Amino acid sequence: MTTAPTGNRRILLNSRPHGAPQAENFRLDQAPVPTPGEGQVLLRTLYLSLDPYMRARISDAPSYAPSVALGELMVGGTVSRVMTSHHPRFKEGDVVLSESGWQEYALSDGSDLMSMEGIVHPSHALSVLGMPGFTAWHGLLKIGEPKAGETVVVAAASGPVGAVVGQIAKLYGAHVIGIAGGADKCQHVVQDLGFDVCLDRRDPQWAQQLKAACPNGIDVYYENVGGEVFDAVLPLLNVGARVPLCGLVSHYNDTELAAGPDRTVALLSKLLFQRIRLQGFIIGDYYKDEHATFLREMSAWVAEGKVKLREDVVDGLENAPAAFIGMLEGKNFGKLVVRLAE
Amino acid sequence: MTTAPTGNRRILLNSRPHGAPQAENFRLDQAPVPTPGEGQVLLRTLYLSLDPYMRARISDAPSYAPSVALGELMVGGTVSRVMTSHHPRFKEGDVVLSESGWQEYALSDGSDLMSMEGIVHPSHALSVLGMPGFTAWHGLLKIGEPKAGETVVVAAASGPVGAVVGQIAKLYGAHVIGIAGGADKCQHVVQDLGFDVCLDRRDPQWAQQLKAACPNGIDVYYENVGGEVFDAVLPLLNVGARVPLCGLVSHYNDTELAAGPDRTVALLSKLLFQRIRLQGFIIGDYYKDEHATFLREMSAWVAEGKVKLREDVVDGLENAPAAFIGMLEGKNFGKLVVRLAE
Repeated sequence: MTTAPTGNRRILLNSRPHGAPQAENFRLDQAPVPTPGEGQVLLRTLYLSLDPYMRARISDAPSYAPSVALGELMVGGTVSRVMTSHHPRFKEGDVVLSESGWQEYALSDGSDLMSMEGIVHPSHALSVLGMPGFTAWHGLLKIGEPKAGETVVVAAASGPVGAVVGQIAKLYGAHVIGIAGGADKCQHVVQDLGFDVCLDRRDPQWAQQLKAACPNGIDVYYENVGGEVFDAVLPLLNVGARVPLCGLVSHYNDTELAAGPDRTVALLSKLLFQRIRLQGFIIGDYYKDEHATFLREMSAWVAEGKVKLREDVVDGLENAPAAFIGMLEGKNFGKLVVRLAE
Repeated sequence: MTTAPTGNRRILLNSRPHGAPQAENFRLDQAPVPTPGEGQVLLRTLYLSLDPYMRARISDAPSYAPSVALGELMVGGTVSRVMTSHHPRFKEGDVVLSESGWQEYALSDGSDLMSMEGIVHPSHALSVLGMPGFTAWHGLLKIGEPKAGETVVVAAASGPVGAVVGQIAKLYGAHVIGIAGGADKCQHVVQDLGFDVCLDRRDPQWAQQLKAACPNGIDVYYENVGGEVFDAVLPLLNVGARVPLCGLVSHYNDTELAAGPDRTVALLSKLLFQRIRLQGFIIGDYYKDEHATFLREMSAWVAEGKVKLREDVVDGLENAPAAFIGMLEGKNFGKLVVRLAE
């Protein structure tokens, strides 16, 4: 039995961060629970996804999507339950994938809602069967194109994208090297996820270890962090290597460009001489054409136990800002989700 | 009637350049005309191709191909005539495409020779129907993938690669903007080659003119120069833009990286947010699979007058070093070839 809600707690963008976000950049607000009109549903947020892309949304720097305005609700994907429906496609009790943002209740006209059909664990819709899993699947298979026997290197290997990338690469017969921050994460990546090797980037020797772990060079580097990982990988890229680029989380808190020299030309020269394909992508572009295929393939792998993903569950909306801030520092261990209700 | 040769003049690498090559980096040498053995042919060089990639070959920095050793013959593609044949596939008088290098005579066992079948003008085998034309065709069509109505920007637009890129892009219905160094080159690019616009990069306002000439942004940038052209193009690249990268001629004489800040992350961020494909390629990788198709398509376009290419012909092997040095400064106007004999 759900008790009648008394208010809708929401987290708003209070100020823009300069560098790493701070608690004071966010504000907990309470508003009345909205009343659905004709054709609308009232949604209760069960799980809120916290993802690195949100850092770009709270900046006013140009990006691929509009910024969250000051004083406005933080954006985010959610798994939500339909509380009241005035929409023919939905009925009370339905669980849907939504873009409700960082709040307990939301209205929707249905256009942003996706079915959870075939998804056994609700939070999977935000992780392995959701945006991060789709990001991993598209970037690796459509841009990385791994072949049996090739070497695939994955940064942030215990994170929701990297973990899935590496497991798919193993299914395709690649030699898979993960890079993660901490011995516990590395152990998980090898023992639970089945990567061949995982290197701890907190080890001062990790870049040398990477070279040793890739005696045949690197054919695919799945890039989502940038920084020193990119610097260590670049010299090892083989002729014909592919670098899908879906994120640069190590730079999201940068406030200025790094000191010189300007290595842009060295990067371009490497891409030229090694005939490397470096391609950025934003997964939102591919839902229309590829999402159904992704969901079919990934659901089967998940059901067969071939792809799994650890979740890092934080309870309570009020804890979302701290969890988000920690994620940008690599403190999460697995896919970070906030549980608001069951 | 050919008179009996008395010697084989050759140009050797005398010393490695530091920065821009100088005359003293090359040495004119005279050797005996070699005598073909069993299975060999003796070749007389008619035309020698001078191309920017040769700058990388005389450096000892890592590249995609081995460096020319000090005291060794300069490498290069040639159109050559068979003088004597002890090879079943060739007869005296045949004209072939060869890799004879910077010399008047060469031996070959036939393995590096290609037929000139279907090539009316011998020097075309080094230009529009040769390596530069193939580079233009592959990079534009296989990586750039221009669509009708898109905007294609081509650097070094009067050069052998850029000129062909732009003309093919016009055949595919694109809006084509060239960039060249000098009013005479720009006039040629628009009036003779049919580009929509050509901007003179010696004009201090050219970057602003580029922005004005691309009101819908840039969908394909065919990169072969780097430097300030790349810098001006990058902010204008559209979502989903493609950047085939076949050269960085403005940097080949660089002796060190540019001063900071390090803009690598800014480049990666742009590639990510705009979902850009940046891909290096070396045309030598594609002869086996694509050259026959290229030659068929391009020969037809050339025969129909749809693709043309100005040649910049220098007479005499002894003038090759100065012509090569000038080419790296943009002094050539069209495809640079050295005529050694008719």
